[in-house]
Amino acid sequence: MSKMIPKFVLMDEEGKEFNWTNLLGKYSVVYFYPKANTPGCTMEALDFSSLIDEFGGNIVGISPDTCNTIANFKSKKGLKVKLLADPEKQVAEKFGVLKDGKLIRSTFIVDPWGRIRREWVKVNVVGHAQEVLKEYRKIIAEDQELNESIILRRAYRGISNKPIPKEVLQKLIEAAHLAPSCMNKQPWRFIVANSKETLEKLHETLSGGNYWMKNAPAIIVVYTKDEFDCQLSNDRNYALFDTGMSVGMLLVQATQMGLVAHPVAGYDPVRVRELLKIDGTVITLIAVGYWGDFESLNEKHLQLEFSPRSRVQIDDIAKFL
Amino acid sequence: MSKMIPKFVLMDEEGKEFNWTNLLGKYSVVYFYPKANTPGCTMEALDFSSLIDEFGGNIVGISPDTCNTIANFKSKKGLKVKLLADPEKQVAEKFGVLKDGKLIRSTFIVDPWGRIRREWVKVNVVGHAQEVLKEYRKIIAEDQELNESIILRRAYRGISNKPIPKEVLQKLIEAAHLAPSCMNKQPWRFIVANSKETLEKLHETLSGGNYWMKNAPAIIVVYTKDEFDCQLSNDRNYALFDTGMSVGMLLVQATQMGLVAHPVAGYDPVRVRELLKIDGTVITLIAVGYWGDFESLNEKHLQLEFSPRSRVQIDDIAKFL
Repeated sequence: MSKMIPKFVLMDEEGKEFNWTNLLGKYSVVYFYPKANTPGCTMEALDFSSLIDEFGGNIVGISPDTCNTIANFKSKKGLKVKLLADPEKQVAEKFGVLKDGKLIRSTFIVDPWGRIRREWVKVNVVGHAQEVLKEYRKIIAEDQELNESIILRRAYRGISNKPIPKEVLQKLIEAAHLAPSCMNKQPWRFIVANSKETLEKLHETLSGGNYWMKNAPAIIVVYTKDEFDCQLSNDRNYALFDTGMSVGMLLVQATQMGLVAHPVAGYDPVRVRELLKIDGTVITLIAVGYWGDFESLNEKHLQLEFSPRSRVQIDDIAKFL
Repeated sequence: MSKMIPKFVLMDEEGKEFNWTNLLGKYSVVYFYPKANTPGCTMEALDFSSLIDEFGGNIVGISPDTCNTIANFKSKKGLKVKLLADPEKQVAEKFGVLKDGKLIRSTFIVDPWGRIRREWVKVNVVGHAQEVLKEYRKIIAEDQELNESIILRRAYRGISNKPIPKEVLQKLIEAAHLAPSCMNKQPWRFIVANSKETLEKLHETLSGGNYWMKNAPAIIVVYTKDEFDCQLSNDRNYALFDTGMSVGMLLVQATQMGLVAHPVAGYDPVRVRELLKIDGTVITLIAVGYWGDFESLNEKHLQLEFSPRSRVQIDDIAKFL
């Protein structure tokens, strides 16, 4: 997991409190400099100031100076960045930019969640602001792209029988378990079949068209029950919907990890329930495995494997009002 | 979107066909070298061979030599990498490593989906194999982490009223529309309320506890209908489940883009249906917006905003059999 910014409160150049939460919800730059009014720090502050609009106004400079000093620094040099006073160097320490009590010139790009997306420690100020801007724009542009795991996820069938380590399967469940649910009721239930014995029993419940699932080293049985979740007016039973969100997370996680995760409906639910002693609705079986065994597929399925994705027009499922 | 490997078939050192699909389902290295048996190409091939196990056996070297030449090269030098003959340089061209008809020494790391994750063009062979291995391991390690958008997604309420560009909202719908569904029935329907008029009407349908949603620059109304999707035996109605997967994708995409997307159940579904002339089950309203306005939250909600996440133990929702 990426590093997150530490929690802190400091005084700004106007003597007002600046809370770490002010950094949330946008992309910002936090930079540490050793001493106001020195040549290097002035150049850095002026360079950042000249690019303030490109950074959407979100640049914060922190130094061990007092409020008075930074107020003077800001007005004398005509700076446009926000300055914070950290005379005790406590925030510098939290950011890890103190060495033997001395502040090391450093810069951080912080994203809307407070995640540190890029850091420079021991900064050379010449050309630095431009370099930070380039990286800042790159990070924002990447985040605005369609998520590649969502794009790459397909209901592939060419699953090899290569075993999946248990930790990998656990990670899929962890991801699923981070989904939201009505009143946080967490109605999703998973049985991960990864033993030869359980898999063989499940194979007998599959419809003929799902022959390819017999290769999969794991099948995740997903079930839930209306009583596990909110049951609200106007047909709003949340168990299946919330379990769907949870499986959505699982599919994204699997794709990121290089695994095919293909949910199917072609199985005998009564037999699956009996077999695994499930009290609830078995809404899907997910075949999980590494891609790349195409020899076991029939001709129709082999063709589907590399065929273009098919979806109705966006206008048929969404409108803006 | 990342570049994908081109489709190709070449002959290997044993005169057997090697299909581009052989690269799928695993992390591999594809490298192009100018000429077998020359000093640089020999060194590169030997260096990669010495690390073949670290790469899981998945290294493929391609050159404009003939099958006979690469067979001889491989046996004489005791190489362990797979060699492919590309005498017409057609595959080199597809990978973009020809310049004025000359092959430029290049290396690609390919992931299980055929995505090119890293490329080196104009390679200096000294230390190259080690550098590629370092990057190869880094990519695999990153992919095995829990997805950060899934971790960072929370049902935050501190949404600011900063407007969201329409293209951004469209991207959320695009992501949602890439979800799988039973028989590809795509039962999800979205009404994106982003005009003042529609938003104000929706505000009147919200329960009191959802006062914070009035700040949101967009509310996505999600609905579906059992008839839009498979209705199978044993209570398996897929409309809500598939719509849930779709919303799961939407939430991941929103988080990646730096947006809070918070699905709620606290609204009057009858009034929402009337207002938007919806024929179906309105399963959720999703408040969408940039994070960072905490002043409008009541004390309880402000505390929840930064409280630890709460989930039942994994063992309570999953077992391995």
